Amino acid sequence: MKALVVNQLHQPFAYQDMPDPVPEPGEVLVRLHAAAFNRRDWWITQGQYPKIQLPVILGSDGSGTLDGKPVVIYPALDWGDNPRVQSKAFRVLGLPEDGTFAELIRIPGKNVQPMPEHLDWEQAAALPLAGLTAYRTLFTRCRLEPGERVLISGVGGGVALVAMQFALAAGAEVYVTSGSAEKIDKAVQMGAVAGANYRESNWAADLKVRAGGFDVVVDSAGGDGFADLLSLTNPGGRIGIYGGTLGKINGLSPQVLFWRQVSILGSTMGSLEEFRNMLAFVSQHRIVPVIDSSFALEDGNEALGRLAGNAQFGKIVLQIR
Amino acid sequence: MKALVVNQLHQPFAYQDMPDPVPEPGEVLVRLHAAAFNRRDWWITQGQYPKIQLPVILGSDGSGTLDGKPVVIYPALDWGDNPRVQSKAFRVLGLPEDGTFAELIRIPGKNVQPMPEHLDWEQAAALPLAGLTAYRTLFTRCRLEPGERVLISGVGGGVALVAMQFALAAGAEVYVTSGSAEKIDKAVQMGAVAGANYRESNWAADLKVRAGGFDVVVDSAGGDGFADLLSLTNPGGRIGIYGGTLGKINGLSPQVLFWRQVSILGSTMGSLEEFRNMLAFVSQHRIVPVIDSSFALEDGNEALGRLAGNAQFGKIVLQIR
Repeated sequence: MKALVVNQLHQPFAYQDMPDPVPEPGEVLVRLHAAAFNRRDWWITQGQYPKIQLPVILGSDGSGTLDGKPVVIYPALDWGDNPRVQSKAFRVLGLPEDGTFAELIRIPGKNVQPMPEHLDWEQAAALPLAGLTAYRTLFTRCRLEPGERVLISGVGGGVALVAMQFALAAGAEVYVTSGSAEKIDKAVQMGAVAGANYRESNWAADLKVRAGGFDVVVDSAGGDGFADLLSLTNPGGRIGIYGGTLGKINGLSPQVLFWRQVSILGSTMGSLEEFRNMLAFVSQHRIVPVIDSSFALEDGNEALGRLAGNAQFGKIVLQIR
Repeated sequence: MKALVVNQLHQPFAYQDMPDPVPEPGEVLVRLHAAAFNRRDWWITQGQYPKIQLPVILGSDGSGTLDGKPVVIYPALDWGDNPRVQSKAFRVLGLPEDGTFAELIRIPGKNVQPMPEHLDWEQAAALPLAGLTAYRTLFTRCRLEPGERVLISGVGGGVALVAMQFALAAGAEVYVTSGSAEKIDKAVQMGAVAGANYRESNWAADLKVRAGGFDVVVDSAGGDGFADLLSLTNPGGRIGIYGGTLGKINGLSPQVLFWRQVSILGSTMGSLEEFRNMLAFVSQHRIVPVIDSSFALEDGNEALGRLAGNAQFGKIVLQIR
């Protein structure tokens, strides 16, 4: 089969022939039709990830066919039995196990789920990791309720965008932040009430005047700006955090935390049950993930460059013929 | 009636005659037999509290009699209808409303609850605010389960101590921290497995080697040391925070938060339902709050001095004859 292979760190993918994978007991062989990038894939190519083993085929997200039927892949391995947290054995698909940037993948049978009928291959491939992360953060962890006011930070990213779509579908009033006025405009076109540009000074205080405060905040940055998000949180509010691109969190007021009864809730990925619930929610509300751009598998290095540039609005997808 | 009155900030209490309070509709008049101090009372005398109105009688905790029957006082006013968070109208008893450092108090009838039968006046007065805060933090917010491992920071304080007692009664394995070896010894005598002195360098790493990590952490300090508590938290762990004596929280790793699915849960006081549940729990397990020292009402300034010195182990109580 053809695949995008990481043979060395800090080097382009090699588009090359690899042996067809052979399923082990309990596994199946899926013929992939589309895959999608996640920030994780970029970090691995840069050596910024624990326990990298080479060579490896990256990719956590994929759609394809099993016995002629359209499927999407649940991208978690060995989550375990505890809904609260993944087991020590947990891995994300696409390191150390070979991932979806290939024509074929072997995967445990239970990781293969029916594809939502309203999505095409590329849209379905754009959904799994981002959708699962957003679903668990918003619903399992933050327990979002209809009519609540939600703030989604960094709205260009794949998880942030689908979190916005899920929150809108759940009947929330959604605001966004971004460093780009263009991305804010696009989010408003999709249904957000308004946005704030976090590059402007006093953006948080201004937003508080305009919007009043938020019941649920979803963030993947952390850093010094996280204290701004806390300042924007309503009494009884929940802040879900699923990433930390800006590093350590500083300057949090304990008084605001306890007096407002705020919850800060770390979240990553989700269980198979959450994945199934997410797919059902997407089908019920006919949610279509936003695709930023789409490349042929052999043009994977162009796709990676697009991811590295941070200009995307939505998912970067690979077409696999 | 006699009362301890704050006429001016930064001045001793005046032990003086005050008019007997006259209940308004819906209120009752309780004859107090004991009261107890909380850290809040100290902050108010030092002017370190919002919206101070003088003169005022402080005191949130009290036991006494209503129609000859022993009662304890629920120290929250206008919590409201939302179990998740107090209403905007919420106040703690003892500012602006006159509190329990007096022979008589007028209070809404629903704030008066039957006193647990196994407690005397002073023990019962030591319970309400600390017990309610500990109960909500441990059970409502952190959802402590039997067999979990719990770390209680700053174990000399009133809330920390009763939180330790509640966690032990609930079947948890409890560790403590303190800056005092003597307080750690006392906690171990009461049932804690072991303790760590946070004045020692590497205390957190050492404790992790000894204890392995914690499912629930209870803190009232915040500050730079909070990151140590996060480092000690198990996957799926919860950190309840009900105070912030050391100020802003710095240096939290988002990666630890999301990868371990940690929850940081601000908590303050609790609803009337939680107060009733707390009293039932205390009665069921025959928990007796720890009294550090006990003073006559007229010696309130000595009691305040004991509170200011931070040497106490348990509650500082006033006897009211």
